[in-house]
Amino acid sequence: MKKGRLEAFSDGVIAILITIMVLELKTPRDASWTALRQSAPVLAPYVLSFVFLAIYWNNHHHMMHLVDRVNGAILWANMHLLFWLSLVPFVTSWMGQYFHPAPAAAYGVVLLMASIAYYILARVIIASQGPGSRLAAAVGGDRKGLVSTGLYAAAIPLAFWQPWLAAGIYILVALIWLVPDRRIEARFSED
Amino acid sequence: MKKGRLEAFSDGVIAILITIMVLELKTPRDASWTALRQSAPVLAPYVLSFVFLAIYWNNHHHMMHLVDRVNGAILWANMHLLFWLSLVPFVTSWMGQYFHPAPAAAYGVVLLMASIAYYILARVIIASQGPGSRLAAAVGGDRKGLVSTGLYAAAIPLAFWQPWLAAGIYILVALIWLVPDRRIEARFSED
Amino acid sequence: MKKGRLEAFSDGVIAILITIMVLELKTPRDASWTALRQSAPVLAPYVLSFVFLAIYWNNHHHMMHLVDRVNGAILWANMHLLFWLSLVPFVTSWMGQYFHPAPAAAYGVVLLMASIAYYILARVIIASQGPGSRLAAAVGGDRKGLVSTGLYAAAIPLAFWQPWLAAGIYILVALIWLVPDRRIEARFSED
Amino acid sequence: MKKGRLEAFSDGVIAILITIMVLELKTPRDASWTALRQSAPVLAPYVLSFVFLAIYWNNHHHMMHLVDRVNGAILWANMHLLFWLSLVPFVTSWMGQYFHPAPAAAYGVVLLMASIAYYILARVIIASQGPGSRLAAAVGGDRKGLVSTGLYAAAIPLAFWQPWLAAGIYILVALIWLVPDRRIEARFSED
Repeated sequence: MKKGRLEAFSDGVIAILITIMVLELKTPRDASWTALRQSAPVLAPYVLSFVFLAIYWNNHHHMMHLVDRVNGAILWANMHLLFWLSLVPFVTSWMGQYFHPAPAAAYGVVLLMASIAYYILARVIIASQGPGSRLAAAVGGDRKGLVSTGLYAAAIPLAFWQPWLAAGIYILVALIWLVPDRRIEARFSED
Repeated sequence: MKKGRLEAFSDGVIAILITIMVLELKTPRDASWTALRQSAPVLAPYVLSFVFLAIYWNNHHHMMHLVDRVNGAILWANMHLLFWLSLVPFVTSWMGQYFHPAPAAAYGVVLLMASIAYYILARVIIASQGPGSRLAAAVGGDRKGLVSTGLYAAAIPLAFWQPWLAAGIYILVALIWLVPDRRIEARFSED
Repeated sequence: MKKGRLEAFSDGVIAILITIMVLELKTPRDASWTALRQSAPVLAPYVLSFVFLAIYWNNHHHMMHLVDRVNGAILWANMHLLFWLSLVPFVTSWMGQYFHPAPAAAYGVVLLMASIAYYILARVIIASQGPGSRLAAAVGGDRKGLVSTGLYAAAIPLAFWQPWLAAGIYILVALIWLVPDRRIEARFSED
Repeated sequence: MKKGRLEAFSDGVIAILITIMVLELKTPRDASWTALRQSAPVLAPYVLSFVFLAIYWNNHHHMMHLVDRVNGAILWANMHLLFWLSLVPFVTSWMGQYFHPAPAAAYGVVLLMASIAYYILARVIIASQGPGSRLAAAVGGDRKGLVSTGLYAAAIPLAFWQPWLAAGIYILVALIWLVPDRRIEARFSED
């Protein structure tokens, strides 16, 4: 099976997710700046989710670049990842409207599940390519992935105590990933 | 005619369908878990429809892999399949809000029509490629397809008696298809 | 400039248009068949518009197949066509909710403008490829296109007298196009 | 890294943006022309935004054509541009409903930020390709880009005094760009 169509499908889904979030932004009620400011709390989590989806697209892109063959297991592991990502607009909208413990925790749950799904996808790909594959060599222990999964897991209970603390952790994880992964990047330059 | 653009168009439509369903998920009314639970009945059929669309994408992907030439008949048989798939978000949303006989039966009708459309597409492709084509050899009697069509047809009247029974059948069909099709998969490895 | 990206962009826009129309279908108000029937008047124009967009995609596909080079004029003529097509969901929804003279005429206006835009695109392409191009030879006088443009122009005033007559004309045009264009199809088999 | 997937992702996002704006067009309240005219103020900015997004797609297309290699910096500069473009439907809808100082200024802010993001993307690409790259030679001082950025910056304060003046400037910028860029176009013909 060629990986091209899987990449195109994943790109399509992520491109749609990143753009439909804007539909959740309600048109301000009147022509005043006050009305815009009432939409602003929705704007902040929108930016955060935009960055998260962009990071996933970026990492997905890098990982797929190192894939040689696609099989049924990779296909479903990829669908599983897309499923959790597809819930991002839903929790973004909820947290945007109510910055309270439950929505902040739900946002963390979706991010946590997406990071676990990404981890599973990486493992399934490595398993299918064999231990000597380029991806296995490039990713290694995947410290960054494990750290983010741990941070999400920590943010969920903290959201019940103080939602801002959870939000701070989400922003921290985004910043960790905005720095491009040198391990894979280094492999690229060899191509 | 090259099959690439037909694949890309179908992928685009299915990618959009699988992601716009999330727009049907209404933001919970307040910041409580109770409000989230009120959205949850919508979540269950959303997951089911996500899996169904993923299965169709997956099978479509496999089938198109074995196609050599695309003609007008294949194009319209494909559009016919996409039409029924495009009604999935509509019936998903209805069944998600009202788990009653009529919506559960309507969900089955859309799945039944999609499975018939898929069957027609497979026949049109085989007819155009000739009886000795790779697809004809790979699909054979298409037992799995016929079984699912029969199960959908059975689920529709059962929905009027007991919606949960119909839902159980839909889940059963999804599970049948989650197992990858070894007949076609076997052909792949020869490529 | 390569035509691939123009095709991909057009496919993307048409794929989105054909699928977002389903979002206009309101979830029935309760779990009864009566509620579904109240959504049904919306369903009929949805099917018609689905067929029209599929026809445009199909014809666009055939025409682009014969294009050798893409320039700025082709690009903007194509954008012009996409603009009118992008209004299809809007007029479909209006006509679906109110089957009255004004919406039926507005639907005809959008179809008329789209058919004119398609005509312009064909001329711009032929002009850029030179009179001896394969497309000019294949399309010739483009009788089918002129007939549909004329039928749309006739349907608009008729909509004010009797909306059903206009609807009948729209269905007639769709049927004319569902028959694949043998002139271009014949050229294909030579490739 | 291959530029193909970056192009495909950007095309997907812009294609979605250009088409979802139509969802903002509310179905007229009844079957009268008066009801359509009440939707018409929304129609005018929709056309303008359609043209702006088409221009961005077009220019993006031309610029990417001259790119040889894609790196992480280009990827994020591109995401930054897509972020601002993704706010276009939001401000279009606001300005369409309330043609007042604040929405007209907000529309200008989004266009200004998008033009700055485009400028950054061009610089990042040129930096990565080296000063002797084809793009650097083709774009040169990028007068047209600087003029539009300046015009947007001027339109924002003017919107507070007279929204129509700001709208006039937006239309002027669109017209400037509708004329294809001869500097890059000239390079094309050499390919």
